[in-house]
Amino acid sequence: MRACDIIARKRDGLEHSREELEFFISGYVKGDIGDEQMAAWLMAVYFQGLNREETQILTDFMMHSGDIIDLSGIQGIVVDKHSTGGVGDKTTLVLAPLVASAGVPVAKLSGRGLGFTGGTIDKLEAIPGFQTSIPSEQFLNQVNEIGLAVAGQTASLVLADKKMYALRDITATVESIPLISSSIMSKKLASGANRIVLDVKFGSGAFMQNKEDAELLARTMVNIGNGLGRKTVAVLSSMEEPLGYAVGNALEVQEAIDTLQGHGPADFTELCLTLAGQMIYLGDKAASAEDGYKLAEELLKSGAAMKKFEQMVTAQGGSLKLAMAQAKYQYEVLASQSGVVQSITARDIGHASMLLGAGRETKASAIDLSAGIVLKKKVGDTVQQGEPLAVLYYNDAYAHRVQDAADELRQAYTIGHADAHKEPLIWKIISE
Amino acid sequence: MRACDIIARKRDGLEHSREELEFFISGYVKGDIGDEQMAAWLMAVYFQGLNREETQILTDFMMHSGDIIDLSGIQGIVVDKHSTGGVGDKTTLVLAPLVASAGVPVAKLSGRGLGFTGGTIDKLEAIPGFQTSIPSEQFLNQVNEIGLAVAGQTASLVLADKKMYALRDITATVESIPLISSSIMSKKLASGANRIVLDVKFGSGAFMQNKEDAELLARTMVNIGNGLGRKTVAVLSSMEEPLGYAVGNALEVQEAIDTLQGHGPADFTELCLTLAGQMIYLGDKAASAEDGYKLAEELLKSGAAMKKFEQMVTAQGGSLKLAMAQAKYQYEVLASQSGVVQSITARDIGHASMLLGAGRETKASAIDLSAGIVLKKKVGDTVQQGEPLAVLYYNDAYAHRVQDAADELRQAYTIGHADAHKEPLIWKIISE
Repeated sequence: MRACDIIARKRDGLEHSREELEFFISGYVKGDIGDEQMAAWLMAVYFQGLNREETQILTDFMMHSGDIIDLSGIQGIVVDKHSTGGVGDKTTLVLAPLVASAGVPVAKLSGRGLGFTGGTIDKLEAIPGFQTSIPSEQFLNQVNEIGLAVAGQTASLVLADKKMYALRDITATVESIPLISSSIMSKKLASGANRIVLDVKFGSGAFMQNKEDAELLARTMVNIGNGLGRKTVAVLSSMEEPLGYAVGNALEVQEAIDTLQGHGPADFTELCLTLAGQMIYLGDKAASAEDGYKLAEELLKSGAAMKKFEQMVTAQGGSLKLAMAQAKYQYEVLASQSGVVQSITARDIGHASMLLGAGRETKASAIDLSAGIVLKKKVGDTVQQGEPLAVLYYNDAYAHRVQDAADELRQAYTIGHADAHKEPLIWKIISE
Repeated sequence: MRACDIIARKRDGLEHSREELEFFISGYVKGDIGDEQMAAWLMAVYFQGLNREETQILTDFMMHSGDIIDLSGIQGIVVDKHSTGGVGDKTTLVLAPLVASAGVPVAKLSGRGLGFTGGTIDKLEAIPGFQTSIPSEQFLNQVNEIGLAVAGQTASLVLADKKMYALRDITATVESIPLISSSIMSKKLASGANRIVLDVKFGSGAFMQNKEDAELLARTMVNIGNGLGRKTVAVLSSMEEPLGYAVGNALEVQEAIDTLQGHGPADFTELCLTLAGQMIYLGDKAASAEDGYKLAEELLKSGAAMKKFEQMVTAQGGSLKLAMAQAKYQYEVLASQSGVVQSITARDIGHASMLLGAGRETKASAIDLSAGIVLKKKVGDTVQQGEPLAVLYYNDAYAHRVQDAADELRQAYTIGHADAHKEPLIWKIISE
C-alpha cells in the first residue's frame, strides 16, 4: 500500500477500505506519511467527501491515536456534552451542575478558546482560585464524590487530531463536514463518556452559517456516535444573535450564576433546560427528554443546581465569595435611532469583544478575563434614540480600540419599524 | 496576503490574480510556504483547474524561479522541440540534426528518463565517448559552429518545477492539464528558444491515454507559449503501438541512424518529417510547413542530415566508428497463432523493456544501455504461428526476468483474422 495511491483513490471519488484508512492515519501519526501527503488527502476529502462508514472508521482510528480516558471507575452513566460554539456561549457553566444535580455524573474535559471569547476553561479561571488543571485521579474522585468535575484537556488525547487540525488550519481544509465531525467526535469518544449530547448551533455567530450545513454536521456526528456504540443526540439551535446578554469571560460567569439562580436570560435558560432534559434522559434519570426538562426546571428553581455549582467551585479550589476581576472602564453604546431591533449579527458582537481583549487573536494571545460586552437590547426589543444598546467593559491595554468596538457593535444592530421576525431558538432534535 | 486564503480561493473555484500567484510561487521557492500548503493548493487546482490566464501567469513565474538560458549569442532563430514522450521515442536523435541541416540552429537541452526507456541524454550516451555534460560556453560555440548541440539540463533551471514536480509525484496531483502544461512550458521557456514545436502523443504508450486529453494539453501549451511571446505549434500523433521497431537505448540510436540514412521505419520517418517541416518553417527556412517537410525529405535523401549528426557526435567527443554496447543474449518471442496483428499495447512493450533493464524503475536505478526489444511485427502485419514477433536483448543481470518480459510482450500483441484498423499517425496540428 502506498500513501500516494490512497490519495489518488479519494481524489477519484472511490471509497476507502478500513485497511487504507488505518494505514494512512497510523502512518501519519508515526510520521511515515508527511504533512504534504495528508494535506493533499484532506483537500481531496474536501471535494469528494467521506461516506458514513468511512467517517466512522476514520473517527475510530483517530480516537485510538492517543490516550483514551477510562471513566469506568465512575458510578452511573456518564453523559458528555459538546457545543459547536458561538458568541456568548456559557452553556457548560450551567449545564454541568444542572445535570449533575439530577444525579447524572458529569466528567467534563473542556478547552480554551481561540477567537471571540475564551473557552469554558478560560471562563472558569475568572473565578478566584479555581483550578482547571487537576490530576486525573483527583478528577475521577471528585466526580464520584460530588458528581461533577470540569477540567482542562490533557495534551495526549487524539494525537491524530492535534496534527490534522493544525494542518487543516493552514491548508484551507477546515470546512469539511466529515473532517469537522471526526475531529469533534474522536475527542468526545476518547474522553470516555458513555452517552453524548451535541449542542449544534447555526447562524451568524456560529461556525455553521446555515441550517442545512448544521443539520448535516449534526446527523454526521450522531451517526458516528451511534455507530461506535455511544448513544448520541444533537440539539440544533439558532445563534443569529448572541446567546443571553453577556459576552466575555467573567461577565458570562456572572450570567451563568444568575441563570443557576433562576433569573437568567430567557433564551439561554431555554437552551440549558433543553440540553439538560436530553442529558438527564440519556443518563437514565428521567423517563423521557420532556421529563428531564421538567426535572431540570425544578432543580433550577429549588437551588439544587446552584448548590452543585458551588460544590464544584469549592472542590476545585475556587471561591464565589471573592469578587471576580472587574473591568476598569465601562462605555455605553447609544442607539442612534428609535425603533425595534430587527437583528443583531452575533459574529460582529464577537469580534467587538475580541477587540476589547476578551478573546484570543492568536494562540499565544493573553485573555483579559474582565473585558467584554453586556447587551441591553436583543432582537424584538423596542429602543429609543439615545438609549444604551450595550455596555462595553475594558481596561487600559485595549482602551485605544474602544471606538472601533463601539462602531462594530453599532453596525451589528439593525433597527427598524416593523415587528421583528424572531426565529424559535430550538429548531430540531436529531437522535438517529 | 496569506497562503491559506489563496488556497481557499482556488478551492472555492475563484480566479487567482497575478499578485496571488506571484506570492504563492515565490513564497514556495523561498521556503516561506511549505510543501503542505503547496500540496493542498495543487489538489485544489486538480479539482478546480486554472484558466488560460492563470496558467500563463503561473508558467511565467515558474520560468523565472531559476536560471534563464540566454541564447541571444546564437545566430538565427532558435527553434526548440519537446516531446511528451512514449515508448520507442527516439525523435530528437533524428529531428535535431535534420533541422540543423536545414540551417535552423538547434540548441537542445534534454533530460534523462524515468520509466520505460532512458531519455535522449541516456540514449546519446550509448554512443562511445559522447559527452552530454558540456559547459554552456562550449554549448553555445558548438551551435554557432555546426548549428547543433544536444546536452543535459543544468540543475538550476526552473527551481519551482523541481520542487513542485517531486511533490506532485507523491501527492497524486500529477494528472492535471494546467499543471502538466506549466511544468513542461516553464522548462522550455527557460531553455531560451525563440519558437517551439511540441510533439504531443496519445494512446496506450503515451502519458495522455486519449485524444481529447492530448488535444487539451496541446492547446493549453500552445496558448502558454504564444501568450508569452514564443510562437508555438503542437503536432498530435498516435502512440497506440510503439514508434518504429526498436525500444531500448543503443537499439534506438541504431534505428535513428538508419532513419537518418533514409531507410528507417515508415511511421517514425513520417513523424520526424512532419515535426521537421514545422520547425524549419518556424525557423524561417521554408515558406510553409509543407515546404519544410519537402526540404527535410531532401536532406534525409542527400545525406546532409546524417552528416550533421556525425558532426555533432564528433564535436561532443563521440565516435560512430566504435561499436555501441551490445547485449550478450537475444531471445525470440514467437507467435502462438497465425493471423494479422490487430494491436500492440505500447505500454506493455515499454514495461517489458524495463524488465530487461532498459529503463529506470526508480530515479537511482542504473540503465542497461544495450538492453531492449526490437519488434518484428507491427499493426497490420501478417504473422504465421512460430514466426518471431520480437527479439529481446538482455544481459546476465536481468536474465531472470526474460520470461516475464516475453509473457508481457506476447500479451501486448492482439492477433486476429480481420484486417487491422490502423489509425493515421498524425492526427492534428495546432498552432493557436
